[in-house]
Amino acid sequence: MRGLVMGRFQPFHLGHMALVTQAMAECDDIIIAVTSTQYNYLEKDPFTAGERIEMIRNALNESGIDPGRYMILGLENQHNVATWPAYIRAALPPFQRIYSGNPYVAMLLRDYGTEVAEPDMVDRERFNASVLRRMMADGGDWRERVPPAVARFVESVGGEERVRTILGSDTDPTRH
Amino acid sequence: MRGLVMGRFQPFHLGHMALVTQAMAECDDIIIAVTSTQYNYLEKDPFTAGERIEMIRNALNESGIDPGRYMILGLENQHNVATWPAYIRAALPPFQRIYSGNPYVAMLLRDYGTEVAEPDMVDRERFNASVLRRMMADGGDWRERVPPAVARFVESVGGEERVRTILGSDTDPTRH
Amino acid sequence: MRGLVMGRFQPFHLGHMALVTQAMAECDDIIIAVTSTQYNYLEKDPFTAGERIEMIRNALNESGIDPGRYMILGLENQHNVATWPAYIRAALPPFQRIYSGNPYVAMLLRDYGTEVAEPDMVDRERFNASVLRRMMADGGDWRERVPPAVARFVESVGGEERVRTILGSDTDPTRH
Amino acid sequence: MRGLVMGRFQPFHLGHMALVTQAMAECDDIIIAVTSTQYNYLEKDPFTAGERIEMIRNALNESGIDPGRYMILGLENQHNVATWPAYIRAALPPFQRIYSGNPYVAMLLRDYGTEVAEPDMVDRERFNASVLRRMMADGGDWRERVPPAVARFVESVGGEERVRTILGSDTDPTRH
Amino acid sequence: MRGLVMGRFQPFHLGHMALVTQAMAECDDIIIAVTSTQYNYLEKDPFTAGERIEMIRNALNESGIDPGRYMILGLENQHNVATWPAYIRAALPPFQRIYSGNPYVAMLLRDYGTEVAEPDMVDRERFNASVLRRMMADGGDWRERVPPAVARFVESVGGEERVRTILGSDTDPTRH
Amino acid sequence: MRGLVMGRFQPFHLGHMALVTQAMAECDDIIIAVTSTQYNYLEKDPFTAGERIEMIRNALNESGIDPGRYMILGLENQHNVATWPAYIRAALPPFQRIYSGNPYVAMLLRDYGTEVAEPDMVDRERFNASVLRRMMADGGDWRERVPPAVARFVESVGGEERVRTILGSDTDPTRH
Repeated sequence: MRGLVMGRFQPFHLGHMALVTQAMAECDDIIIAVTSTQYNYLEKDPFTAGERIEMIRNALNESGIDPGRYMILGLENQHNVATWPAYIRAALPPFQRIYSGNPYVAMLLRDYGTEVAEPDMVDRERFNASVLRRMMADGGDWRERVPPAVARFVESVGGEERVRTILGSDTDPTRH
Repeated sequence: MRGLVMGRFQPFHLGHMALVTQAMAECDDIIIAVTSTQYNYLEKDPFTAGERIEMIRNALNESGIDPGRYMILGLENQHNVATWPAYIRAALPPFQRIYSGNPYVAMLLRDYGTEVAEPDMVDRERFNASVLRRMMADGGDWRERVPPAVARFVESVGGEERVRTILGSDTDPTRH
Repeated sequence: MRGLVMGRFQPFHLGHMALVTQAMAECDDIIIAVTSTQYNYLEKDPFTAGERIEMIRNALNESGIDPGRYMILGLENQHNVATWPAYIRAALPPFQRIYSGNPYVAMLLRDYGTEVAEPDMVDRERFNASVLRRMMADGGDWRERVPPAVARFVESVGGEERVRTILGSDTDPTRH
Repeated sequence: MRGLVMGRFQPFHLGHMALVTQAMAECDDIIIAVTSTQYNYLEKDPFTAGERIEMIRNALNESGIDPGRYMILGLENQHNVATWPAYIRAALPPFQRIYSGNPYVAMLLRDYGTEVAEPDMVDRERFNASVLRRMMADGGDWRERVPPAVARFVESVGGEERVRTILGSDTDPTRH
Repeated sequence: MRGLVMGRFQPFHLGHMALVTQAMAECDDIIIAVTSTQYNYLEKDPFTAGERIEMIRNALNESGIDPGRYMILGLENQHNVATWPAYIRAALPPFQRIYSGNPYVAMLLRDYGTEVAEPDMVDRERFNASVLRRMMADGGDWRERVPPAVARFVESVGGEERVRTILGSDTDPTRH
Repeated sequence: MRGLVMGRFQPFHLGHMALVTQAMAECDDIIIAVTSTQYNYLEKDPFTAGERIEMIRNALNESGIDPGRYMILGLENQHNVATWPAYIRAALPPFQRIYSGNPYVAMLLRDYGTEVAEPDMVDRERFNASVLRRMMADGGDWRERVPPAVARFVESVGGEERVRTILGSDTDPTRH
């Protein structure tokens, strides 16, 4: 049984880590799919796909998780949502179970024979990527809410300054 | 004289039906163009293009409207608006008159020799697709504001639950 | 039971007409899907989607076919073929059977619960759109291989000269 | 040394003119890059790329600026921001210095060896394209904040009425 | 009267120069539109849009042509050809006459009120960009068929080696 | 030092395996990037991105290669080649060396500080994906030229029949 965990991971935090841990405990192996790979250097998407893959990889290595039991892969977003289940089936190796507490995702996958598993409770207030990005900009203590390897990686790419610069600008380069 | 009626029809309601009826009374035949065909399962666009075409077709059949006098066709949206008149000319069979109360549409088509006809007054508060979608989510009485065939079709695809799920989710899968 | 007949219809010829006739004899109603709607004024795609819809509509009217039993709709091509079955399901009203002699199409739809029906034999040498376009450019007798309404329509838009101009040019405006 | 001045120029106003003047005083020649060329007839982008190029050209001619010392060129927006520096390098002739007070732009170009020059102070309240568009719609005195040639050009294309029509419509044709 | 000269200019050669000269002699001013701007480092499109603009600019400067009488601008290709005339109208400042010996271009613009002017005869065998690219790869004497400034520019970007590398590779990075 | 090995891997064969082995011997860890992820069910691209990732994963597992020393990731193709180096930098975790015998790839990456390493000689006649696809269609002995795990995977998805069907069809669904 292969499980699928999806997210934008902007950044990858301890709530995501808990979900990965749960999925690995319940499945033979898992796919961690980084979504919205085409976006970066934006308010909601400051990190590139490559950076997100690297920070996840580093965090899992640091935790001593067996690299033979997961794959980290990317997914672009689709504007034609009805084709999204077919798109992820083509973009990813076979999987049988998806971890998602989002009824929207469950609805989309309902007719595709994918089992939808409920994530364990985490503190969603505390582990919230949007809040973390705001803390990065404001100099808050985001580091204690992410795996140490993620904190180090974000620092190595100047992530705090990047997020601060993006949030402080009224430029949306994807539009205007 | 062929008329053109356009809309997203999310869903097709009695206000749309009145416009179709007016256009058919004033033209030899009409094109009903479903716009934003590339969007679906979104807050403002819960139904697929195929579903919207089907609900319109069913509503017109139910009303006994002669199927030889209309065509239902789809149109994608264009981000380069200045090319939109050329796009619809290429995507649709020839037409001479467009029914639109929107001065924006009239402006875009001004230099293309298309006659712009004013729709008859309808109760825009009452027949408003955005309000209807909200009523679908909240269990309101949207059924009395759409043709019976549309109500049946929306039920057959689980439309209320779909809209409720979409509106209840903070996921915008086209973006994040 | 609703059937689906698909094609680029560049132009719609008597072989296509035979397929439509067969499908209408075997189904309650049919969808005629015009593919490659985004292409036009090209060597293999001289006519716009709107023109192709109009020529088919005219041909079916001329044949006295009940307009309540078919819909003519457009489909864009998808480069990600694995998502194509999902795309056509979202773009078109529900259908149960597809008429296609192409094993490729059958393969793509195999896992989607769509019945694939075999078209009756037609003379594929004679009814071949590529050959017809060549005849249009060269002044050959393409008219006898298309419904009279199609011949009239192609003439009304200057189709012979258009095809001759396109085939005589080495410009591929979609590329260079 | 060639400088680069970028903007959407919706419309080109006296603040932009001051920046162009500064850049021309400090460089051998400059590129004026009109961004978001794919957008037009929208709330934030009422004018087409061609119109914006024309209004800038007219304004610079009117000021007697040597046409041998500038080029006006267009740039589409990129949703993958990380590729934007590479995109503008491929789309534009070589340049060495960019005039931008936006730390976001400076951040993106940091690793590309482009010098980022600080624009001189202008009254950003007064010279603000968003405010000017609002004034166009409301009949305010936007003319005194743009070069006379821009005022004449905007009038020649019916710009006030266009902006008023767009702002008065709730249609976003790029989306719904 | 403003004229329009279009081409991919891969590279800009003396045949193109003759056309520009003719158009400038017959018009008040001209637009030189570089097409296929989105393609580069390809067999038929080795030079970027920015490089092509620069080489044309240099060639015209070298010839002492008044920079106040021309603009060099870029155009992306459109796959939906029927929208191409609308696209170029939106992308470029107003123009009244197009120089093109291609009946295909004349056909597309026929209904848009653009005058189509016939280019003077040039030796098309000799001034042929495809032949020049082949000569660049093979070490032939392409320099005498382009303006000296173009020869210098191509050398400055290592154009011969670039073309040789592209033509010697079986990689088409846009596809495989 | 992290190395990068790229390819379409349609399918992944023993020549690819040799390259992966070489790169892993010379680097600390490697990225295996599957290109052209957006294409599938086509003559040159029969397998989806997900299938290609799975077959590579299976082959490496079978060989006992340490899963902690490689990542398999996907890359879409870019038509604007000049932005390709920036695209892969954003899509992939950091890497320092690329294994490629293709001078074209070396040229593109020259100015990006990426070391280009020469692959060891392999029998390119024998290990050629195009030849292997032809053998799949014709019932040739392609199995001995791929890792056993790839042969098993291709069989499990009906790969021979798929390739035969695609090659036997004159349909190019991405175009017509």
